[in-house]
Order: sequence, then C-alpha cells, then structure tokens
Amino acid sequence: MDSSGQAASIDTRMATRPLDLELPVVQPTGRPALDAQVAALLASPCHPDHALGRMETLVQQLVRIQHPEGLEVAGISLERPQMLVFAADHGIVDEGVSAFSQETSGQRVEELLAGEAPVNALARVHGFDLTVVDAGLARQLELPAGPGGRVALLSRKIGHGTRNMVLGPAMSARQAVAALQAGMDVVRHLPGRVLALGDIGVGSKACASLLLSRLCGVPLADASGQEQGGGTDSLRRQHRLKKLQLAAVRHRKAVSPLEVLAAMGGFEIAMQAGAVLQAASERRIVLIDGFVAGAAALVARGLKPEVGDYLVFGHRSTEPGHRLLLIHMQAQPLLDMELRIGQGVGALLAWPMLQSAQALLARRLAAGQGSR
Amino acid sequence: MDSSGQAASIDTRMATRPLDLELPVVQPTGRPALDAQVAALLASPCHPDHALGRMETLVQQLVRIQHPEGLEVAGISLERPQMLVFAADHGIVDEGVSAFSQETSGQRVEELLAGEAPVNALARVHGFDLTVVDAGLARQLELPAGPGGRVALLSRKIGHGTRNMVLGPAMSARQAVAALQAGMDVVRHLPGRVLALGDIGVGSKACASLLLSRLCGVPLADASGQEQGGGTDSLRRQHRLKKLQLAAVRHRKAVSPLEVLAAMGGFEIAMQAGAVLQAASERRIVLIDGFVAGAAALVARGLKPEVGDYLVFGHRSTEPGHRLLLIHMQAQPLLDMELRIGQGVGALLAWPMLQSAQALLARRLAAGQGSR
Repeated sequence: MDSSGQAASIDTRMATRPLDLELPVVQPTGRPALDAQVAALLASPCHPDHALGRMETLVQQLVRIQHPEGLEVAGISLERPQMLVFAADHGIVDEGVSAFSQETSGQRVEELLAGEAPVNALARVHGFDLTVVDAGLARQLELPAGPGGRVALLSRKIGHGTRNMVLGPAMSARQAVAALQAGMDVVRHLPGRVLALGDIGVGSKACASLLLSRLCGVPLADASGQEQGGGTDSLRRQHRLKKLQLAAVRHRKAVSPLEVLAAMGGFEIAMQAGAVLQAASERRIVLIDGFVAGAAALVARGLKPEVGDYLVFGHRSTEPGHRLLLIHMQAQPLLDMELRIGQGVGALLAWPMLQSAQALLARRLAAGQGSR
Repeated sequence: MDSSGQAASIDTRMATRPLDLELPVVQPTGRPALDAQVAALLASPCHPDHALGRMETLVQQLVRIQHPEGLEVAGISLERPQMLVFAADHGIVDEGVSAFSQETSGQRVEELLAGEAPVNALARVHGFDLTVVDAGLARQLELPAGPGGRVALLSRKIGHGTRNMVLGPAMSARQAVAALQAGMDVVRHLPGRVLALGDIGVGSKACASLLLSRLCGVPLADASGQEQGGGTDSLRRQHRLKKLQLAAVRHRKAVSPLEVLAAMGGFEIAMQAGAVLQAASERRIVLIDGFVAGAAALVARGLKPEVGDYLVFGHRSTEPGHRLLLIHMQAQPLLDMELRIGQGVGALLAWPMLQSAQALLARRLAAGQGSR
C-alpha cells in the first residue's frame, strides 16, 4: 500500500507540469466607480440607501461582468441562457460512500434525457437551452427515441468512471487536463450570455468534500459532514468519513488545484471547472448550482483567481460542506431551499433573480433616458 | 393625558362589538393525505427523499389551497396574478419615529404611478397586474397624464392619514371596520388565483412593531429593534422606542386583534388584513411582502386563524421585527435579500418560485398521464 501510494503521488504531481493545458485569459471585473454609478442609478430620494439590498449587489456584479468599459443604456443582457449538466461516475462509490449505487447516475441522466427530471421542467419554464454532457459515465448513453425533453446530449467521455481514489488517483494528470479542455470546448460552442452549471454523478459529493478540505484547509469531518440522522445513518456517516480519510491520506502530497483535481476529483467536476474558466474568459455570467458545481468553481478559482468575479451562486443546499464552501468563496447564495438534488435545479430556481435584476436596472436606465 | 387615555381605550374597545363587520368564511386547507400524494408524485427512486426540499413544501401548500377535493391533472393555476399596493399615512410620524417625512409616502406613490418604482419593473417582467389603493394618504392623488406604468389607482381613502397614536387611537373602531371591508371589497373585484400584497406609508413599520408586540407578546424593544448603527442612529432608535412605548402604554387595554388594529394600526394595514381574509375565503394564494404586510397578515390570522393556510411569505427583510414576526407566524420566507423597501418588491422577487413549483408539479402530472 505504501509503494502504490507513492506511485499515485508521483502520477498526480506530473500534473504540475502543465502538459498541454493552456488556461484562457480571465480579466478581473472590479471597477468601484461602476458600482457607485449603479448604486446611484438604483437609488431614490424617497427610499433608504441600498433599499434593494442584495438585489443592488447582484445588479452591480452583472454590470461589472458585462460593461467593463462603463455602463451602457442597453443594460444587462441575459439572452439565450444555457444550462449545462455534466454527468460522470466515481470509482470511490465502490467503498460504499453513497446511499445510491453507481447505476443511479445513468438512471438520473436517462430521466433527464426523457424530459422527466426536475431540471427539464425548470429549464422549460425559465427558457433555458439544456445540454447534458457525458463527461465519464460508466455506461453508454443514447438519446431516447420519443419527443423527450428537447435536451442536447454531448459525449465527451474521458473514461468509464474515475478510478477508486482510495486505491490510487481518481484520474491521470492527462485525463484531468483533457476534461478541463473538454469543458472549455463545450462552452466555446454555446451561445448566450449566461451559463448555468450543474452535475449528475453518484459519489460526487465525496469528491467535493475532499476538494474543499484540501484546497481550503477545512477539516475533513466538517467538509464531509452530512445531514444529521440517527442509527444506521450515523454508522454510514462514520464509514464514509473513514473512507474519505483514507483517500485524503493517500493523496496527502496533492496540493496544487490540478494535482488535487486529478487525485480526488471527478470528470464532471473537471469539466465544470473548464467550463467556468472558458465562460469567465468570455465574460459570461456563470450561475453555479450546488456543492459539487461549487467545488468545481473552487478548482477553477484556484487555477485563475479572477473567475470568482463571474460567479453567481444559486443556492445553499442541506449539505454542511456546501455552507463551508460558500463561506470560503465569500459567496452569498441567492436561495436556501434545502435542496438535496444537483442537476442544476438550484441554479434554475435562482435564475429569475437575474431577470429581476435586469428589469430593476432597465427601469432606471429608461427613466434616465426619458429625463435627458 | 390620563382622561384622554381612558377615552381612547373606551373608543377602541367599542370595536369588540362587531359593528357591521361580517368576516368571510375561510376553510382550513389541511389534508395530510394530499401532502403525501404530492410528495409521492414528486419523488423519484433515483433521488433522495424530499430531494426538492422546501420546493416540495411549497408545491404541497399550493395544492392544498387549490385542490381541496383532491389533486387534479390541471395542477396549480397561477393565472392573472395581482399585485395590490395599499398606501396610507400615519399620524405617529409627527413624533419623529421615521427618518422620512410624511410627504414621502405620496412621493413613493407618485413614483409608482409614473411607472418608475422598483415594483413597476418587477410587475412588468413577471406579468402582474398592478393596482395601487389609496387607503388613507394625507394628500389627494391623481393618475399621471403620461403613459405611466399601466397602474390602476383606486381611491378607498378612510381618512387623511391616521391620528397620532401617542395621543389617542390611530383610528376609530368604525374606521378600522370600514378599512377591513374596503380591503375585502377590492379583492372581490379582482381576477386571478394569486394575490400579492404590499404597502407604502411612512411610519408603517412603527405600527407593525406595535402590532407584533401586542398580538404576539414580543417585547417592544425587540419588535421595534431596527438595524444597528452608531451615533445619531443609536439616539434615533432610543427616541423611536420611547415613543412606541408611550403608544403601547396608552393603548395597554387594547387586546383583541380589532382593538389593537384600531388603536395602533394603519389604514393600509387594516385594508391588507381585509384583503387577506377575502382572498383566503376565495381560496386564492396570498403572497405576503414584508414586515408591514406581515403585520396585516397577523391581524387577519387573529380574526380568522384559518387564513394562515393561504399565506406564502415572500421574503425576510433587514428589519429585526420582521424576523420575529415570521417566527410567530411559523413561516419560512422564500427569500432573504436584505431588502429595505416595501411596496411588494420582495413578494414579486419571490413570485417565480411559485412558477417553478407549478412547473415541477406539472412535469410529474404529465409523466403520470403518459404512463397510464
């Protein structure tokens, strides 16, 4: 076990030599003058300062992203919003870290391709194009023959699930880089000014916990702390934590974001990180779903700190690690609906807040035009 | 001062004799079997139980409201949603309890009638009809000549602002009843299955604090606790609390909801309470905005406990009293955006969650149909 542990750490450390990975240029958005301009525009003498609270903050962020050269009358553009759902399997599920079996990942994707998942309903009602990317499911997928849910399916399979990270690195450095690049590539070919990111994959929360723990220095017991429950739940939690600790010890030498991603990440996480990088480099608004998408954002921020400026966090889930991740990202999510589902559900629930932000700004811009 | 205090308490106690007030019949919605049916419908074998968290709870509530005889395939209907904004002035503003002057109430309404208030932008983007009701502003209002914001204005003025409740009851029992009836009447003539309630009126938060304190037994210092701030803010808070305490002592004998409403309420609060009662009696979904609308809901619940079943709370504001009010209503608001504005802004920001709830249920109902 010692010798294979060493082999694993050598493998993942190769990733520090960047192989073919070229990261896109991401500009920071920060312009305090722009924030003041937006605040003044939203203000009214007959209301308290900052009457719109966090809606003002949201408008400011969206303006910073879209109007680096100064606020224009066009306001915020949200046209053709895209929902990207990355799906993959995780070898660590062999260790019994999830209440679901590996087959469930594929079933979730099938439900989605059939148009019957919650994310289909939300994408339809909120006008999103929905694309599922097979980042590395254990099985092959096909689009159903029926009318389905008007879902695009892309195959960018890096492997048939990651390896069991308790025994070795989840993926090779080459695979990690390939997944990042695939994520960038997918986004490059999508239209729209807003990219919502979600994911499917049994075992992915175990990865998210490990990434959070290693990249932010959060004790693993906190990062992996699942919802409270007695009896068998408590036993399962202890078992899970023990397995995650084994993985963390095995990959103790993985430190850089790319090393950590390869050693303890997942294909869908790597692709989401790539998608974040590409979207931010194109000045798109990036709407992050839950704990796993948040962990991908954490990796992307580790590679390019400027991406943080482009992230809007949709919600806070019931997962205790998610709460800690948001704190480390210094992010206030828009919603807290106690969701226990990924797929982008929380991102799409939060989306109308962006539409409201757009409308609040547009009203003031129009009023300013009228009075000139 | 003692003799006028006694006169005031006799005046408000008249309200216990119901005058002409006939409250509409409100049916409780509770049907545990229906909740289980909805939960089963939203569940999927490839997701954890209650994966949709508070969205499931929301769907259950909306179904209970609209389908008392059992869930139908039609699902949740949200057609022609109505935003009602009640505006009034408050005599207690003479005591310096607000940072704004009484004239500001009228200015806020003018901004709204001109289509330039935040609530206009949100009503437009989210497809609400917007109606402003002059419940008792100190001044006369006219619709602006220009294109405006497609806002209907109704005059149901009970008086030119309430009286200063530090000196006597805010309104007579007759006025309180007239305001409640006006609120019912306004709703009776509106279409739609969803009624959002908001308000405008400098000094209204002082009323809300007093109503909360008296009706729920919350210490006044907590119910009126405003946001923290140093220096003059701290002095202003102390001054305000002293004035509210004077009002509370003067109306110490007001106990029943109607007595309390007349003694320390406002015209827009009374009308909102009437609107809640009428809407609940018609099985409409009632979307409550902020602290003041919440206090009106508290009064309505005091008069007819069953109305609680029909209330959806849009948001939690920065007002500490609002937090306590929500706890006493056993309500979890949909949003927490740190708003410092009423008018229905928070209700309209939360509205898309109802659309999402509708869509999530519709998907499952359609899937159930298809598989039969």
